[in-house]
Amino acid sequence: MIKANFKKKILPLAVLSTVAFGSLVGTFNAEAKNEGKENNAEIKNVIFLIGDGMGVSYTSAYRYLKDNPDTPEAERTEFDKYLVGNQMTYPEDPEQNVTDSASAATAMSAGVKTYNNAIAVDNDGTEVKTVLEAAKEKGKATGLVATSEVTHATPASFGAHDESRKNMNAIADDYYDELVNGDHKIDVMLGGGLSNFVRNDRNLTEEFKKDGYTFVNNKEDMLNDKNDKILGLFAKGGMDKMIDRNEETPSLEEMTNSAINRLNKDKDGFFLMVEGSQVDWAGHDNDIVAAMSEMEDFEKAYKTAIEFAKKDKHTLVVATADHSTGGYSIGANGIYNWFGAPIKAAKRTPDFMAAEIANGADAEATLKKYIDFASVGLPELTTEEIQTVKDASATKKALDIDNAIEKIFDKRSNTGWTTGGHTGEDVPVYAFGPGKERFYGNIENTDNAKNIFDILSNGKRK
Amino acid sequence: MIKANFKKKILPLAVLSTVAFGSLVGTFNAEAKNEGKENNAEIKNVIFLIGDGMGVSYTSAYRYLKDNPDTPEAERTEFDKYLVGNQMTYPEDPEQNVTDSASAATAMSAGVKTYNNAIAVDNDGTEVKTVLEAAKEKGKATGLVATSEVTHATPASFGAHDESRKNMNAIADDYYDELVNGDHKIDVMLGGGLSNFVRNDRNLTEEFKKDGYTFVNNKEDMLNDKNDKILGLFAKGGMDKMIDRNEETPSLEEMTNSAINRLNKDKDGFFLMVEGSQVDWAGHDNDIVAAMSEMEDFEKAYKTAIEFAKKDKHTLVVATADHSTGGYSIGANGIYNWFGAPIKAAKRTPDFMAAEIANGADAEATLKKYIDFASVGLPELTTEEIQTVKDASATKKALDIDNAIEKIFDKRSNTGWTTGGHTGEDVPVYAFGPGKERFYGNIENTDNAKNIFDILSNGKRK
Repeated sequence: MIKANFKKKILPLAVLSTVAFGSLVGTFNAEAKNEGKENNAEIKNVIFLIGDGMGVSYTSAYRYLKDNPDTPEAERTEFDKYLVGNQMTYPEDPEQNVTDSASAATAMSAGVKTYNNAIAVDNDGTEVKTVLEAAKEKGKATGLVATSEVTHATPASFGAHDESRKNMNAIADDYYDELVNGDHKIDVMLGGGLSNFVRNDRNLTEEFKKDGYTFVNNKEDMLNDKNDKILGLFAKGGMDKMIDRNEETPSLEEMTNSAINRLNKDKDGFFLMVEGSQVDWAGHDNDIVAAMSEMEDFEKAYKTAIEFAKKDKHTLVVATADHSTGGYSIGANGIYNWFGAPIKAAKRTPDFMAAEIANGADAEATLKKYIDFASVGLPELTTEEIQTVKDASATKKALDIDNAIEKIFDKRSNTGWTTGGHTGEDVPVYAFGPGKERFYGNIENTDNAKNIFDILSNGKRK
Repeated sequence: MIKANFKKKILPLAVLSTVAFGSLVGTFNAEAKNEGKENNAEIKNVIFLIGDGMGVSYTSAYRYLKDNPDTPEAERTEFDKYLVGNQMTYPEDPEQNVTDSASAATAMSAGVKTYNNAIAVDNDGTEVKTVLEAAKEKGKATGLVATSEVTHATPASFGAHDESRKNMNAIADDYYDELVNGDHKIDVMLGGGLSNFVRNDRNLTEEFKKDGYTFVNNKEDMLNDKNDKILGLFAKGGMDKMIDRNEETPSLEEMTNSAINRLNKDKDGFFLMVEGSQVDWAGHDNDIVAAMSEMEDFEKAYKTAIEFAKKDKHTLVVATADHSTGGYSIGANGIYNWFGAPIKAAKRTPDFMAAEIANGADAEATLKKYIDFASVGLPELTTEEIQTVKDASATKKALDIDNAIEKIFDKRSNTGWTTGGHTGEDVPVYAFGPGKERFYGNIENTDNAKNIFDILSNGKRK
């Protein structure tokens, strides 16, 4: 637990000879610390997970959010169990020293620091080989899973090459057109971004189908299909955030599972990149409700990967972030508290509610429909809180309404923000399975790719 | 380096078969990763360093600040070389779930989560034994070094017991009155806080002198003295920040060295706690100039401890933070840059300048005396910048003037803040020497004490 629910009692101080001593032996995270020593297995598979924007404030806040108040210590998250260090995220950009997602993903996919916006090209504009491509060259199966467009900066930097992340149509073309040993280089693509594949000039879903891929656009079809090769696109652009999704939309966990099941059929092993894409989008929006929704989506996907690796014994799982976003802080305005409960009261993101209100729904009714503070033991929405959203809705602009709703949650949770952009602090690195020791300590973001290239070349943990 | 100084060239994209590959082998922090394996030595000494308020934004920003722009990668700081994980900082307080320094220091000194304000007492008000006391019971020499009052929350939680951190006189009394096996429990005390030792009701400097301690109040006397037992108090309250100090005031590095040299004479070994106290104070003040000054002071002290341990081979050095402060972010307001150069232009802290201006010094002349932007290749102070300070000085309040000066540096560096208080994200843990493996991964702040208690009881690294 994080905040105990007891009364403070200050008894007269005892003399020193009667001090309480307590347990002498430090607690260890035995699973994380001992697992590697027993595992000298060949590394067949690598699952690399990126929580976009998932800086240490997010991973720590998520622990606060999930905390069970009835236990004496905070419950570790799935991530916590496998922390091995932090990585440095700075880019090599002529104008900016805080990274964007393209530069950071290129560092992690290709081992090369480059400029912001670069999709697996270096500062000279030269294409740089990615670990996904190297895996395919080795005959392994490969996959990209994301909740953004599957052509967005992070997945694109593993499966395409472009001078700019903005060229998402060209990136989709790369996924089809760029061959490795005569074959398409990505066997499994699951995420958003239908509009980049089905266009006036080209319909890549049809092209992929001709070449033996299944194309799906809903959860049921994805789950029912057994083909090794699949293109699944579940939204025109980015997918909805977890708490806003309908039943036809798969979770990141379901997409990850579906990818692993397909890729694992390859006797040569596989490389899979999974992105929790929208922690970052929530951070840009300064939306703590959406951020925690996406943390949960990503944690479940991470857990699925870990569970596979525990059974498989030949799989290295690495999870990290590309940078942090929003200058998000746990606590703000001088208050020494951060509360997860208000966030749990939201059934939809502020964006979702704001869109309904901007489209003409009554502000108060909409707020009451989707925010149930009483369910988490908190005072109901106040007249003042409702009024701020009513005032904002006068402009009919969803952005203004969204900001007003977000501020209700910021204030109740004591969440602080400094920017709508990224920030430059180091981000956590988590690793499990054979080879995890390579990621210990303070590493460069480029070390992720360098380590994976080396593993692909010799299959060894060291 | 972090920001390269070259022109972006985007050449036509090469075809995939000609991709650049680069180094296949990940770089490792060989020193940190291999040192422990060779070192099965008995652990005689433990040096525990706390950068108060030194969250990951501070340690990362300090790397940006010290970066050499002429090298291709960012230079690792002394801290970076020995990163082993992160620790969770939450307290067990009935009212607050973000920790203060007293509760966090009690967790690290005694292995007990407690309420904010508690000085080595638990939630029942019972005194809890500290690692310093346990070391003294084992016959080891002990020391406390800080740039705050040496009776301030962090050092106090290692050497005293009190229901409130505010009782700094009673804490100074504890340092003298509480005995272990008939002796004073702290052999070396160096820092600020003279006014807590020399009072109308009691002069503890005289009492310590009668019992064989040297008392000093300036750097030269500290350096010249060879006594094993010393009380050095270099300011009435907290010491000046590094860039504001006069020649009579020792640095944290000099105090640390002086402490180690004395303590190391004990054949039974020693325990030393060193606090870089004022990273936190700078964070509370939202003062990035002071924060980086104190980071440098602390890094040098840390390096001194590491250098001793490298020679000694029987010394465990652990450094960490108690929490982060200020909601400080590297980048703010949508800008993807954070610049150290403006901070290097300051010869004194904004507080120092503000005090002079509040005392009647001319605002413009004072700013120009202590801020030399041209020296770091930046445009000189602008008329607008100077005017903001002139406007603030109309109130004659140092705080207003201080805030105005701080904002000049925030804006030029792109520094963001969300609070004048603490924040709840995990903080980095650094460890070197035998026993460092105990601190790997995601740990509780209480694990620091539990590990050290165990080491004290058996001297073993595991």
